[in-house]
Amino acid sequence: MRIYLAGPEVFLEHPLAIGEAKRALCADHGLTGVYPLDNQLDLAGLSPRDQGRAIYRANLALIRSCDVMIANITPFRGPSADVGTAFEMGAMAALGRPVLAYSNSAQSFARRVEAHFSGRVHRRADGMLADSQGLAIEEFDMVDNLMLHGALEEGELFLHAAAPGMEFTDLTAFEDCVRVAARMVGR
Amino acid sequence: MRIYLAGPEVFLEHPLAIGEAKRALCADHGLTGVYPLDNQLDLAGLSPRDQGRAIYRANLALIRSCDVMIANITPFRGPSADVGTAFEMGAMAALGRPVLAYSNSAQSFARRVEAHFSGRVHRRADGMLADSQGLAIEEFDMVDNLMLHGALEEGELFLHAAAPGMEFTDLTAFEDCVRVAARMVGR
Repeated sequence: MRIYLAGPEVFLEHPLAIGEAKRALCADHGLTGVYPLDNQLDLAGLSPRDQGRAIYRANLALIRSCDVMIANITPFRGPSADVGTAFEMGAMAALGRPVLAYSNSAQSFARRVEAHFSGRVHRRADGMLADSQGLAIEEFDMVDNLMLHGALEEGELFLHAAAPGMEFTDLTAFEDCVRVAARMVGR
Repeated sequence: MRIYLAGPEVFLEHPLAIGEAKRALCADHGLTGVYPLDNQLDLAGLSPRDQGRAIYRANLALIRSCDVMIANITPFRGPSADVGTAFEMGAMAALGRPVLAYSNSAQSFARRVEAHFSGRVHRRADGMLADSQGLAIEEFDMVDNLMLHGALEEGELFLHAAAPGMEFTDLTAFEDCVRVAARMVGR
């Protein structure tokens, strides 16, 4: 079973090391981890935008080649997950394949948005919690936007409060996802 | 032709009004705009999480019923687009259908990330621009994460510097997308 490893760790200074660590955990459980940087792309001579497009196409092809996705939805540059990861989760969901996810923040979504706006949230006239721009803050008892959490119905979600500085490298909750994926093989 | 209207305007205090405005612009060009809140869901008696799941399933079904998506990728609570919109773009891309997008910020992605970190960005040893957590900032001459911009290859992207406070209601660039969608009908 091929597992697509979605997450913002591709932005780490040593992205191949964490990819190898994730792949090794998958292998321990009899699974094949597929990492976005597995593509051996020849980007020489391409403009920056064409490089980006080539990586996009390669990643989407890798997603199509996988049976299950494990997405790292740890908050990234704001209260929500990385948008690239969110995009990839949507692709997998539309393909009708299971998405598992983990977050290295155990804080609720509403509290994270509140912290993002330094506590400047309020109740609108319609009863919805809203940020300082008046935009509603979802209160669906979910860890992020409902499209992301909703996609996990066929999968599972694990939360782990990683130590400061370890948010993008702690693999405790990732391994919880791998165990669930391994149990899916038998089904 | 049915156009799925993806974007964070569902979080506005009057989300139906902007939905109607978008639908009217679609109709002006002979297109049917499909807005996430078009679903008449009976959520009474459901837990908040089950309400969220019902909305998720209904939105994904609406996306599957559409031919083209117009996504509002205006930065939302951080330097990137709304993750719900990103998820929906990924779904449409995986279905092999065109995605058009607009942003009411004309600033480059790298500059927005830099502003998000109050200018505390640096060059890593590997030459990549990075934020204060050491995470790479993409420099692919794209408006957001490469998965989002990459998905627009079959579509188109329009940028418009909306006036402050109008970021989520200005429909100038949205109408540019509608015009392109209308030209797709003939193909």
